[in-house]
Amino acid sequence: MNTSEFRRRGKEMVDYVADYMEGIEGRQVYPDVEPGYLRPLIPDSAPQEPDTFEDIINDIEKIIMPGVTHWHSPYFFAYFPTASSYPAMLADMLCGAIGCIGFSWAASPACTELETVMMDWLGKMLELPKAFLTENAGEGGGVIQGSASEATLVALLAARTKAIHRLQAASPELTQAAIMEKLVAYSSDQAHSSVERAGLIGGVKLKAIPSDGNFAMRASALQEALERDRAAGLIPFFVVATLGTTTCCSFDNLLEVGPICNKEDMWLHVDAAYAGSAFICPEFRHLLNGVEFADSFNFNPHKWLLVNFDCSAMWVKKRSDLTGAFRLDPTYLKHSHQDSGLITDYRHWQIPLGRRFRSLKMWFVFRMYGVKGLQAYIRKHVQLSHEFESLVLQDPRFEICAEVTLGLVCFRLKGSNKVNEALLQRINSAKKIHLVPCHLRDKFVLRFAICSRTVESAHVQRAWEHIKELADDVLRAERE
Amino acid sequence: MNTSEFRRRGKEMVDYVADYMEGIEGRQVYPDVEPGYLRPLIPDSAPQEPDTFEDIINDIEKIIMPGVTHWHSPYFFAYFPTASSYPAMLADMLCGAIGCIGFSWAASPACTELETVMMDWLGKMLELPKAFLTENAGEGGGVIQGSASEATLVALLAARTKAIHRLQAASPELTQAAIMEKLVAYSSDQAHSSVERAGLIGGVKLKAIPSDGNFAMRASALQEALERDRAAGLIPFFVVATLGTTTCCSFDNLLEVGPICNKEDMWLHVDAAYAGSAFICPEFRHLLNGVEFADSFNFNPHKWLLVNFDCSAMWVKKRSDLTGAFRLDPTYLKHSHQDSGLITDYRHWQIPLGRRFRSLKMWFVFRMYGVKGLQAYIRKHVQLSHEFESLVLQDPRFEICAEVTLGLVCFRLKGSNKVNEALLQRINSAKKIHLVPCHLRDKFVLRFAICSRTVESAHVQRAWEHIKELADDVLRAERE
Repeated sequence: MNTSEFRRRGKEMVDYVADYMEGIEGRQVYPDVEPGYLRPLIPDSAPQEPDTFEDIINDIEKIIMPGVTHWHSPYFFAYFPTASSYPAMLADMLCGAIGCIGFSWAASPACTELETVMMDWLGKMLELPKAFLTENAGEGGGVIQGSASEATLVALLAARTKAIHRLQAASPELTQAAIMEKLVAYSSDQAHSSVERAGLIGGVKLKAIPSDGNFAMRASALQEALERDRAAGLIPFFVVATLGTTTCCSFDNLLEVGPICNKEDMWLHVDAAYAGSAFICPEFRHLLNGVEFADSFNFNPHKWLLVNFDCSAMWVKKRSDLTGAFRLDPTYLKHSHQDSGLITDYRHWQIPLGRRFRSLKMWFVFRMYGVKGLQAYIRKHVQLSHEFESLVLQDPRFEICAEVTLGLVCFRLKGSNKVNEALLQRINSAKKIHLVPCHLRDKFVLRFAICSRTVESAHVQRAWEHIKELADDVLRAERE
Repeated sequence: MNTSEFRRRGKEMVDYVADYMEGIEGRQVYPDVEPGYLRPLIPDSAPQEPDTFEDIINDIEKIIMPGVTHWHSPYFFAYFPTASSYPAMLADMLCGAIGCIGFSWAASPACTELETVMMDWLGKMLELPKAFLTENAGEGGGVIQGSASEATLVALLAARTKAIHRLQAASPELTQAAIMEKLVAYSSDQAHSSVERAGLIGGVKLKAIPSDGNFAMRASALQEALERDRAAGLIPFFVVATLGTTTCCSFDNLLEVGPICNKEDMWLHVDAAYAGSAFICPEFRHLLNGVEFADSFNFNPHKWLLVNFDCSAMWVKKRSDLTGAFRLDPTYLKHSHQDSGLITDYRHWQIPLGRRFRSLKMWFVFRMYGVKGLQAYIRKHVQLSHEFESLVLQDPRFEICAEVTLGLVCFRLKGSNKVNEALLQRINSAKKIHLVPCHLRDKFVLRFAICSRTVESAHVQRAWEHIKELADDVLRAERE
């Protein structure tokens, strides 16, 4: 494909994308296909001679779209939102064209420098403590990771290295393995599965702290675990506090947990993957109080801040903690500026070596929405979740299962798990809307997450009518 | 930005991208900026009210482009290529619009299923042993990782888990830490720095095997290390063999190393990050001989197969080895098909949870180039590197430092490292072309990598004339 054909096909693709977004409401949110549907629809090997672009574009509607779960449909209320906005898509087109691999400053200075400044912009939008920012020659700074899972892992690995160095400095006879055997990390029993996974990968124990009645990690439970584990000879070194859990958007008590971590010399990582975006609104900023105790903080603009996946924002108070865990400098990656102290080589901050020019998406989105536009977007979602909550509360057959703070409502039919499983099964079989469940303690609960950029009150109302009708069916079937 | 503005701006962006690609030869390949150039050029916080799209597009030329290293300039000969093609860019636009997060089959069946089939297509293009394919209900299969670094890490973690399980099955009293203390992994001393990093992250020893005169890992050196380490009570469990090293594109001897790994029950991971793309050409396929001994194999279509970053292709012989290392199933990620045995939840195959619909890029590129088009592309690059090699050989002041097999030429002025460092410094200060160096043993060497999709013989000739002139200057300065 030469450049002039790209001009033509690119514009056709822009229209295809625009048509898709405009018409998404008319598509069934969850697909009808069964596992294995796709393979029989396409050849079993790549063509020797080129196909035409028409062949491919026709196959999108024939082969791809029937198997797509439409995450941006206003009837998608599953998981958590994943961001989608036109400014981010435009930035991604530019990112693809520049196509630099920004592993070091020299590999593309603009890629590194815009990222550093955008992370400062975003940090200020959240009113992060200055210690996390790069400007004014601070020791902290931000980096774009691919996902919150990676941010948690990177934080755990940095904490592990720091703990090993500290213990070996005090007792040089200790081997790394002897220390790792004793290291123990903590998170709430409501933390995301990626935290447990980070422990597995890092080869350290990860213990779940029982959350309180509001599904929050509190000082007392953490303190109890610390005392028990220290008495058993273990070495607590790392705590993940979650702001906005995946199950029910509960908030660990940072103001209690933070000081304990600081006092006990444990790295505190704050995971606000979903909720973090809301902290740009002054009325939600209090939920972040206590972040001043953290060593690292992470949330996903690619969830709720209109920056398309992937863009997971991570800050640390001391850059050297991250780079100290990972720094390796082969000759082919050295460059003349790297020891100047002025520059950032982001490859030392992350798991992969390569990285795309993702800060362009932040720049486009922040500028084209403005802070006020982004705040309005968050507020609209929160308002819609409260609207859904009040609908649920008006129906005495249902209950709300956790406090509704942001855009997630956990609800269920009063009664058995079985009847709720049946309700969810009917909802996801009807495919008019899409939800996923969670477990809160022993209760099977339905999660209604406000997700789509284009979801409006009318969609929420229609979703609730539909859920009520299916509930009628389920309860009728149960009585019969 | 509403949809109708997106239609307009999207088409403007298509033209901007096309103009950039058409005019890239006229841009200076390496930027003039100094560290810290960007921050003073933009506001120190995000705007409250929206900026216009015109503001942003104007700032691209003013603020971004002056700091870009143009990886797709035909005068870029640094590192290794990173892929760029119009079909991949079109696919990425579609990927951004669908914007699904394909962590499980249910999260978007098309995203998972196209990936599985594309990995089979690509595996067949390379003539990978059938054991690595998914079709015909095999135990193997492919997955798209973000980078070769992640693939190496994932393989190491899977191997670590497998070794721990095996040893604990034999000796249930052994703790994980006691085993990890003894585990040792190996790679050639020419392996990429990400291999050492994977060892660091995984908390296991990683030893470098001295390569032979052709910078290849051979049986004898590996065997020697194994014997020494076993005698010291260590447990060898993992070997990374590199096909096409970053320093000089040398090839570890898989036919020697592979059988040792199988015999000694060590996981063999083959890293062909750069070179792998060439194996689609029958005349280069012999370089992959011995892959039948491997447990996992990885290369980067995002380097040399015209699929824009990121797209790192990884295959394993036993899917369950990967998923066994990572599998965690919280309720909010469960879905009704997952225990059917028919489906793939790729989140168990990788470090992050989220993943984009990257197989669309493979589908578009494979179809719009056809296998023959891709082969022609590889062959053109190899031919250009041989052309450069023969130019170097015609000048008795220079020497070739490693066998030229694919698209990389390692060369230097006969003489001191100092004179070669001076030459590189002049080249990269003149900024007409861009190169990076490497060390081969104690020699400072210049790497000339054929990178750009649009590089032609004329660019290579011009680059060589330029290098010769700068060499004249360097040698003159040395004599003075």
